[in-house]
Amino acid sequence: MKVNGTPYRSIWLEDDGRRVTIIDQTKLPHQFETVRLETVADAVHAISDMLVRGAPLIGATAAYGVCLGLAENCSDAMLETVCAQLVQARPTAVNLRWAVERMRAVLTPLSLEQRLASAYREATDICNEDVQVNELLGEHGLQLIKKYQKNQDLPVNILTHCNAGWLATVDWGTALSPVYKAHDAGTPVHVWVDETRPRNQGAHLTSWELAAAGINHHLIVDNSGGHLMQQGLVDLCIVGTDRTAANGDVCNKIGTYLKALAAADNNIPFYVALPSSTIDWTLANGTAIPIEERSENEVLQVSGRCTDGTMGKVNIAPEQTRAVNPAFDITPARLVTGLITERGVCEPSREGLLSLFPEHG
Amino acid sequence: MKVNGTPYRSIWLEDDGRRVTIIDQTKLPHQFETVRLETVADAVHAISDMLVRGAPLIGATAAYGVCLGLAENCSDAMLETVCAQLVQARPTAVNLRWAVERMRAVLTPLSLEQRLASAYREATDICNEDVQVNELLGEHGLQLIKKYQKNQDLPVNILTHCNAGWLATVDWGTALSPVYKAHDAGTPVHVWVDETRPRNQGAHLTSWELAAAGINHHLIVDNSGGHLMQQGLVDLCIVGTDRTAANGDVCNKIGTYLKALAAADNNIPFYVALPSSTIDWTLANGTAIPIEERSENEVLQVSGRCTDGTMGKVNIAPEQTRAVNPAFDITPARLVTGLITERGVCEPSREGLLSLFPEHG
Repeated sequence: MKVNGTPYRSIWLEDDGRRVTIIDQTKLPHQFETVRLETVADAVHAISDMLVRGAPLIGATAAYGVCLGLAENCSDAMLETVCAQLVQARPTAVNLRWAVERMRAVLTPLSLEQRLASAYREATDICNEDVQVNELLGEHGLQLIKKYQKNQDLPVNILTHCNAGWLATVDWGTALSPVYKAHDAGTPVHVWVDETRPRNQGAHLTSWELAAAGINHHLIVDNSGGHLMQQGLVDLCIVGTDRTAANGDVCNKIGTYLKALAAADNNIPFYVALPSSTIDWTLANGTAIPIEERSENEVLQVSGRCTDGTMGKVNIAPEQTRAVNPAFDITPARLVTGLITERGVCEPSREGLLSLFPEHG
Repeated sequence: MKVNGTPYRSIWLEDDGRRVTIIDQTKLPHQFETVRLETVADAVHAISDMLVRGAPLIGATAAYGVCLGLAENCSDAMLETVCAQLVQARPTAVNLRWAVERMRAVLTPLSLEQRLASAYREATDICNEDVQVNELLGEHGLQLIKKYQKNQDLPVNILTHCNAGWLATVDWGTALSPVYKAHDAGTPVHVWVDETRPRNQGAHLTSWELAAAGINHHLIVDNSGGHLMQQGLVDLCIVGTDRTAANGDVCNKIGTYLKALAAADNNIPFYVALPSSTIDWTLANGTAIPIEERSENEVLQVSGRCTDGTMGKVNIAPEQTRAVNPAFDITPARLVTGLITERGVCEPSREGLLSLFPEHG
């Protein structure tokens, strides 16, 4: 997607064919800064400190992280160490494990001489496939948006949670890919953006993406979605997912479950957009998905742009108060209307998923 | 309740018998500052700019606001003007109208000479009755908390939204009154405090109250409650209400509806604590309650204590992004387990309410 007229991906290989550059997403929306990754430690830091986030982009960054490790030393021991370090960087998104396992499977059988070039080739393939998959998923989602358009002159009101836009992937995004496709196709859309505390990825990233693309949107606090649904101001919800169980249970940013409950209570369709790399076929349902507990400081402090233009943080609680900060929740499949994948839209069930991905049957 | 060992109410008459002092709640939890109200304009400002908030305290402040107006001039015209100004200060809480109408009804028949002294007497009565009512309500709520205690050694985990503590009333609070009673009675409690964006009354006020009282609590983002309920970490929810329809529909701080949905989905009891002054017997249900739309700046900015100790604000969204800020939502009676009032606990229905308040039948 374009930033000030220049096309960007969220991660790219430098011209030297070795180093990798990312957008530092902790600085958005106030500063657009890029960061160069030179070592596997840089990649682990970028993932765990959330300079990059979003399940598909975490996977892509981990794939390049393997490359950066092998650039030092292509031994079996190094490959194992690097894979282990990367997988531990964050616990919930399955794409991280998926990408690292894919790299390991390709690289392990190769001779040491072949490994580095193959690693970069495979990581680049992972990125390019992600872009393709998300664009396809967007086309399927566009048909859904058109279906829920009540009137040609009125925008379709779409509520989304967190950021599942191009910044969460290599390009296009998952939940926002259909929104970009609709905008490009001339179907009017308006997006309700949940700010998504504690890290405010909605306020920081989704708002920034939509503003950059000139797409009509309003920011709301996470508390508002239910009321807007009660008032008939939401036509459909589309969110992303960090891990999808084989039965269609969805693990996404904390608070997704509450919006799914409100959508069900108001008969509003609730869709989850996902590249099939987020499906964990080994999990019968969502209850076993590990939920990352992050620092209480993300709750106790809010960061943003101060009145003097500098970046800063404010403390919102009394000093004696402690906080708890689970980063994800599970939305049971019964609350999901459908799953939007690169192969089409399906019911949120094992049967539904297998109808599109029979190779996992 | 005590602040650093000194007993306080949230509003009190000065020794001169004329001026009124409040706690400036916009400065908490970082600064404890009091503000003197000298004119009706001061009272209107304190209500509309939320130096005082919480339905019962808004009512008490409005009652004293009538006194401050009459202190200038006791004419019929002044009484009408003052009442009209105060009622318009905020639209949703019914206690505001209730308190102003009660003052008007008492004062209108009186001679001009009698009005001022009677006004102060009536406003003081409104405050004292609020304290009594909330303490009674707390006793009834305490019995409920005991009922949900699974094990004598384990605390009862109570989730609350916004601030319905002593700062929202003249003393004791509504939703927190049972919590204070339980703490005093030696029944262990632990409170999950929703931060309650956009104004963060949970982070700023509820956390401060509980910390001051030495009650075990954790701050959580508004997104977390559903997940905690799924994990079995919430035994019951207690919230307040700004206006209760005659059928038991409840209008409370934005986001209450989402927590009620999650409680219902997880079979967790969801109680609303209310002095009967919040019941609007003229409303058959909640759909006609006006929902206040507040400034988008409350969403776009977050205030707190900066790292240098000063109070400040940070902007969380890109400059082009606009926000929408409804302040309340309606929780339908079907999602409410029971209403805790000063006369006991009842079902959330017209029949339930009339069983306790037959004089409104």
